[in-house]
This record gives sequence, structure tokens and C-alpha cells, in this order.
Amino acid sequence: MSSAATRDTDPDRLWSVTEHLEDVLATVRPLDPIELQLLDAQGCVLVEDVTVPVSLPPFDNSSMDGYAVRVADVAGASEEYPAVLTVIGDVAAGQGEQPHVGPGEAARIMTGAPLPPGAETVVPVEWTDGGLGRGPAAGMRAHSAAPEGATGQVQVHRAAEARAHVRARGSDVQAGDRALAAGTVLGPPQIALLAAIGRATVRVRPRPRVVVVSTGSELVPPGVALGAGQIYDSNSFALTAAARDAGAIAYRVGAVTDDAEILRSTIEDQLVRADLLVTTGGVSVGAYDVVKEALQSVGDEDEAGGGVEFRRLAMQPGKPQGFGTIGPDHTPLLALPGNPVSSYVSFELFVRPAIRALMGLEDLHRPTARATLHASKALTSPAGRRQFLRGTYADGQVTPVGGASSHLVAALARADALIVVPEDVESVEPGTEVEVVLLG
Amino acid sequence: MSSAATRDTDPDRLWSVTEHLEDVLATVRPLDPIELQLLDAQGCVLVEDVTVPVSLPPFDNSSMDGYAVRVADVAGASEEYPAVLTVIGDVAAGQGEQPHVGPGEAARIMTGAPLPPGAETVVPVEWTDGGLGRGPAAGMRAHSAAPEGATGQVQVHRAAEARAHVRARGSDVQAGDRALAAGTVLGPPQIALLAAIGRATVRVRPRPRVVVVSTGSELVPPGVALGAGQIYDSNSFALTAAARDAGAIAYRVGAVTDDAEILRSTIEDQLVRADLLVTTGGVSVGAYDVVKEALQSVGDEDEAGGGVEFRRLAMQPGKPQGFGTIGPDHTPLLALPGNPVSSYVSFELFVRPAIRALMGLEDLHRPTARATLHASKALTSPAGRRQFLRGTYADGQVTPVGGASSHLVAALARADALIVVPEDVESVEPGTEVEVVLLG
Repeated sequence: MSSAATRDTDPDRLWSVTEHLEDVLATVRPLDPIELQLLDAQGCVLVEDVTVPVSLPPFDNSSMDGYAVRVADVAGASEEYPAVLTVIGDVAAGQGEQPHVGPGEAARIMTGAPLPPGAETVVPVEWTDGGLGRGPAAGMRAHSAAPEGATGQVQVHRAAEARAHVRARGSDVQAGDRALAAGTVLGPPQIALLAAIGRATVRVRPRPRVVVVSTGSELVPPGVALGAGQIYDSNSFALTAAARDAGAIAYRVGAVTDDAEILRSTIEDQLVRADLLVTTGGVSVGAYDVVKEALQSVGDEDEAGGGVEFRRLAMQPGKPQGFGTIGPDHTPLLALPGNPVSSYVSFELFVRPAIRALMGLEDLHRPTARATLHASKALTSPAGRRQFLRGTYADGQVTPVGGASSHLVAALARADALIVVPEDVESVEPGTEVEVVLLG
Repeated sequence: MSSAATRDTDPDRLWSVTEHLEDVLATVRPLDPIELQLLDAQGCVLVEDVTVPVSLPPFDNSSMDGYAVRVADVAGASEEYPAVLTVIGDVAAGQGEQPHVGPGEAARIMTGAPLPPGAETVVPVEWTDGGLGRGPAAGMRAHSAAPEGATGQVQVHRAAEARAHVRARGSDVQAGDRALAAGTVLGPPQIALLAAIGRATVRVRPRPRVVVVSTGSELVPPGVALGAGQIYDSNSFALTAAARDAGAIAYRVGAVTDDAEILRSTIEDQLVRADLLVTTGGVSVGAYDVVKEALQSVGDEDEAGGGVEFRRLAMQPGKPQGFGTIGPDHTPLLALPGNPVSSYVSFELFVRPAIRALMGLEDLHRPTARATLHASKALTSPAGRRQFLRGTYADGQVTPVGGASSHLVAALARADALIVVPEDVESVEPGTEVEVVLLG
């Protein structure tokens, strides 16, 4: 990371959103892979090429309920002149011993059951009388309801080519094929394939453990009465939920009072379960800004690349930001501003990509779209700042909700997009095309 | 549901996908709401209109680090002729007692801190000398680093209008406003708002508990060696993962042997933790189809609407399907076919919407799109069946992967879309526009 190089540069420098994101991503490395049970690996990134150990299907099997027969025995068969065969038993799925089908014989076979030795093809039950000596059968009856069907005779009304209604061994995947490539994200269909080829565990990057701490002596938890000058802690809830939404295992530590020593010891305490720490509040220039104070005493500042750096970004909301690594394991930490909207927007721009980078995902960012601004008046944005306004997006149009102020959490809750106003734009007229970040 | 009415109709009847989905959705009702902690309610549907109990912000507060002053005291101030005010102390966020700002006085104030009594406006620190007696200040220093800043004098270089840099009480939401409407899905921003207005718990429909059972004597769990005629159980893994992906809390019971009595007792045993049961395998017409047998003895068949009905659908893959309710609580059950691709496609079409209906979501279905078929030859589809082929979708084009056969798990794992071929279409030429269901 660049903090060692930049720490001593102009403290009034404004960093661009792009520069900051690059520096944040340079501090996080994908987590070391571990072997996980299949269902625990859902949503994770595979780190190995998985090879097929045994062909799928592992044996020739029937794709229909019907009769396994020899081709010559049904040649020329018709409803008028059926082939009459002796039923020698049932072939069931999962049955080790299978009957041998000789000339003039048929074995009743169910979908998925192995083609028995001697048989060359399968005639569907609908092409036979189902062993009932009457016209074409509509289907097979349950074994328990019709055990007598495993003996006697069957009339076959149509000829079948060799290997008709047979799924060949290896027709899905062949032993030695690459089933999945390293880098694949494991969703339900990939888990299906891994199970199907017999893999009980796979090597993946685990979900990162993210610890969320909000700071501020004014914060009280929801559910208790507000005292004078107090407000409810919402950031620790919102960012814990957002971290889970991004794929992390997130722990909400809650609000810590504005006391650098208490905050420092809380953070040191949490390091043991953190792959990433996120704080909110206390990073602006104000006199009670304790996060800066606290973090300056965690970890090894002397080591290159250690320590947390505080910056002002050319961005609205979210101007004050801190980031770096702390503690003996150089755990990455992002210190976000305390206003609810600022912290949420900062999370979307910097923490979410960091979480996804820790997971080893290639696709770090929310999808974006071009949209036409639908508004009653022009949007204004400060010069030199990249502004992120809240909006609702539908059918190529985006409508701002609420104003630019970073305390408008009600408007945030109605938004599903961020409207991006670039640094060099100070006014956006209605009808103009803008870039939007699509949330959730 | 319609099973009582339809049970006795033509067993050879083919039901359409639409008819079956309607009947499935008619058997599930949204789960009863419960009061959950905020973070446990993530992704759930709110069932109450939430009203704002106390305005946000709850008090006038500063949007900047600076000084709280009276308007008259800074009128006409400039860098050349600054207003000189006596600093009477700090106003900090969360501090109960605040200093009273009289004529000629200023209180150092941090972002978010309450506007103290007597003060009428806030001048940002950048408009002052920061109490240092020199030129304009770049920012405030941390309180611990500059306690002396809470006393002495400050020079103000610019006038400020009344209530400049003040966020007014109630400017975000007013007490009595509706914060969120019943039916809202709770994502991170909505959780932010609920916490911000002091709600620790909310009334939502919980995530459904889904129990997944695969059946088949041929099935062995991944990780053990295959015997003759055996294959790996993949459906219980794939559908558990898919149920979680759809929002459910899913339990994988695993594979049960083809024995109706064992299956019946397994299902009865699981009912205590199931809001929805999903089985795979054993629903086609074959002689070893035990799910039908087993389910016919669970629950109260005599009661209208009870019991499980088995049907043939005009669909490929996924022709045989069962659904209904079982047990004393009339727990919904969907019995899917056993081929991996059939069961996965059936899950997408019928189980996923059922899970989302249980959650009370309005949006039950995957998004669909129109896409141009990119293929080297025409797709063929059986007349009278709605076919769902696997494909990859990008930039308005869809490319089939693998064939139509329902045993091709490897192709499924490469697909991200289902290509829908309607019932009345038997061939689709390359370049034709088709409907696709976008997966994941």
C-alpha cells in the first residue's frame, strides 16, 4: 500500500475516489483457501481445478421406464404382430446383481437403472402391453402394487434400435475431464456437479469475517429511550447487514463511546475474529475524533505498510476516510465517516469491493447503468467532488430521492441506486444521461 | 387447492406448467409473522407499517466542525476585519449539558453535536483562525491534542446566516411519519432507517424452513466409493443450496433408500422443523417409485385439501411431479423427479416461487429476458411440451449448453439461463428470438 509513501505528503490533499479505491484494494489480499464441506462452500470461489474421477453416468442406464431387451427380439414388432418375450425380473436403480437378458427375454427396467447384461436396448412401457396381455400400457405400476409384473410375458408393439433410450456411460462427463475450473463461484448447479462426481469437500476461499464497530458517545442502541443530545446507533446495524449482503460473515460489535483507549482495546480484542475491521464515526477533523487517536496506537507503525492513514476524499458524501492495516496480522481496517448516508455510501464504494476481493471474486463492483435523469430541477454538485446522490431506477430513468445531505437516512431507505455526478460537473439538467450504481 | 377436485380425473391428463404452478402456489400461504431482532430480519418482509416515534434528527445539530455563534456577532466579519469571540467551551456529540452561547461568545462544535442554547448559526472552522490567532484554519485538531482550543479567543473571517450549517430537527423524518410500509423487504438501508428511529425489533414473516430429502437405493453420499449400479446423491446438495439461495433456512436430510416405510417415517420425523418439504426421485411411473407409496400414507387423506397428488406435466424435463400437503399441520410438500437436471429445473419453476410465497414476497419469479438464439443448428422440442433448455446468456444472446437430456449435470453447471421453448413450438432456428429465464 501507499500509506508509507504518502503519510508525509500535504495533509490538505484531496484524494480521488479512484485513487482511494485502488489503495484500499492494494491492502487486501484474497484469504487463504481452506477445505470446506460442499454446502459450506456455497457462494465461495473454488481455488482448484476439479477433475472428474469417474465418468457420469458411471454405467449405461435407461432413460425410460420399460423393458430391457435384445434388438433382434423386437425387430419388426407391431401392435398387430407383437413380439412376445418372457419377463425374467426387475432391474432396479441401485441394485447390485442384475438379471442376464437372453434371447426371447425381457427385464422390467426403471429410469436410471443399469442396462442389464445381455440387453441391447430399452423399449418404453408405452410401446408394450405392460405385461397385462391387453393393449398399449399407459405406464408402469408401482412395484409393490404390481409384483406380478416381474414375471410372465410382455408383448412389445414396436421395434427399437440398438441403445435406444439408453444413457451411455460417460455421456455427461468423462473421467479425467475438468469439471470446474479454479475461480468458479459455487452456486447450486456447481454444487450439484461436485456432488454428482463424488466430491464431499472442496478447496475454496472462505467468507471473510467482518467486525463492525460504530463510535460516538451520542449513540444509544435502538429500543432504549433517547436522552438529551443522543441519537440511535444505526451504522453498526446497517453495515453488518450490508457486509452479510456482500458475502461476509459479519459481527456487529455496536457503538463504542468516544474514548480512544476504550476503542483501542475493543479493536485489539476483536482482531482475533476479524479478517476485516470496519469502524464508523470519528474520522472527520473534529476535536472529538477518537478513531484517529485510537488507531494510531494499534499495531506496528514502524513497519512499512502498517498503520492506518486518514485522508480527505474528493467525494460527497464521505469526504473523511481512513484505511490501512492493524495488529500483528496486519488486518485490514476501513474507518468510515459517521453520518449514516456517508457510511453507507462509503461501504458500497470501498468496503464491499474489499470484502469481495478477500473472497477472491473477480467481479468486485455493483453493476452500473446509464440512465436519464428524471427530476423537476437541475441537480447541483460541488466542483471537484464526485457526488453520489440517492435515487430510484426503473426502465432507463433515475429519479433522485431526498437531497444531497448526508443525514437523510429515510431517503436512503427508499433508494435503489446511486446517481454519480463526476468531479467536473456542477449541474445536471433533467433529461441528461447520468451514470447510476444499481444497489441490491 | 384443486387436488380434491382433480384427484379422480383422467390419470393420463397432461397438466401445463402454468396450471401446476398455480396449484402449487394455491397450497402455500405466507408464514405467520413473528417479531425478530433487526439483524435477524434481513431479507424478510415487513408486515406492519412502521411509524416514526421521534423526529430525525432529534435535535438541531451541526453539519460541520466549527463554532456555534450568534448571527449578529459575525455580521460583516472578514479576514481583514475578523469578529473576535470568546471561546466558552466545547459542544460534543452525546454530551447532555451544553454551554449557553451569549453575545460575543462562541462554542467549539463538532459535526453532529447539538446546536447549543443561545447559538443561532455555525461557522465552519475553515472560516476562522481555529483559535490560533493566525490565518484561516485547515481543520480542527483532535480534542486530546488541543484541549486549549476550548478556551481563549477565535477570529471569525466570514459572516453566517441564521441556521447556516445546521441540520434541523425533523429534517430527515418527522414523528408520526410512516417510515416503512408493510410489504417492504428489509435490506441494509431499511435496517439503517429502522435502527435510526429506535426500532430494535420488527414484525416480519420469517424465512421458511425447508427440508430436502432425496430418494433412491442407488444413491450414495459424495466422498465414498461407488459400488455396482450406484451413483452419487447430488440432488439433496443442489436443492438445499438452491433453497438457501431462494431465502430459506434449508436442511439437507440426504438420501433415503427406496423403501416406502422408511421414507414415510423419515418425512414424519422431519415435519416438526419443516415449513416446506421437498423430495426428489421416485415420482415417475416406474415400479420402484416409493415416494408415491410413502406419501399416500402420511397425513389425513380424508380431509379436503390434504394429501399429495401426482401428475404428469406437459414439460421437458420434469414431466412427473407431485405436490400437496401432509401431516397434522398440512405442511406443503413438493415431490420432484430424480434426474438432477429435472429436479433442478423443477425447483426453479415450482419450489423457488413457493419459498418466496411463504416469505410473503410479491416478486416470486426469476427475471426473464428476450434473447436471440445463437446456435449452429435448430433446437428441437417435443410437440405439446414446454421445454427448458440450459444456456448461457450475454448481451441479448443465448447459447445452448449441452443437450436436452435431463442427466447432463456438467452442462447445467455451465449454464446461467434456461431457454424456454413453448408448447406449440417444435423447432427453433438460430437467430430466432426466445424467452430465457435468468438464473442467479
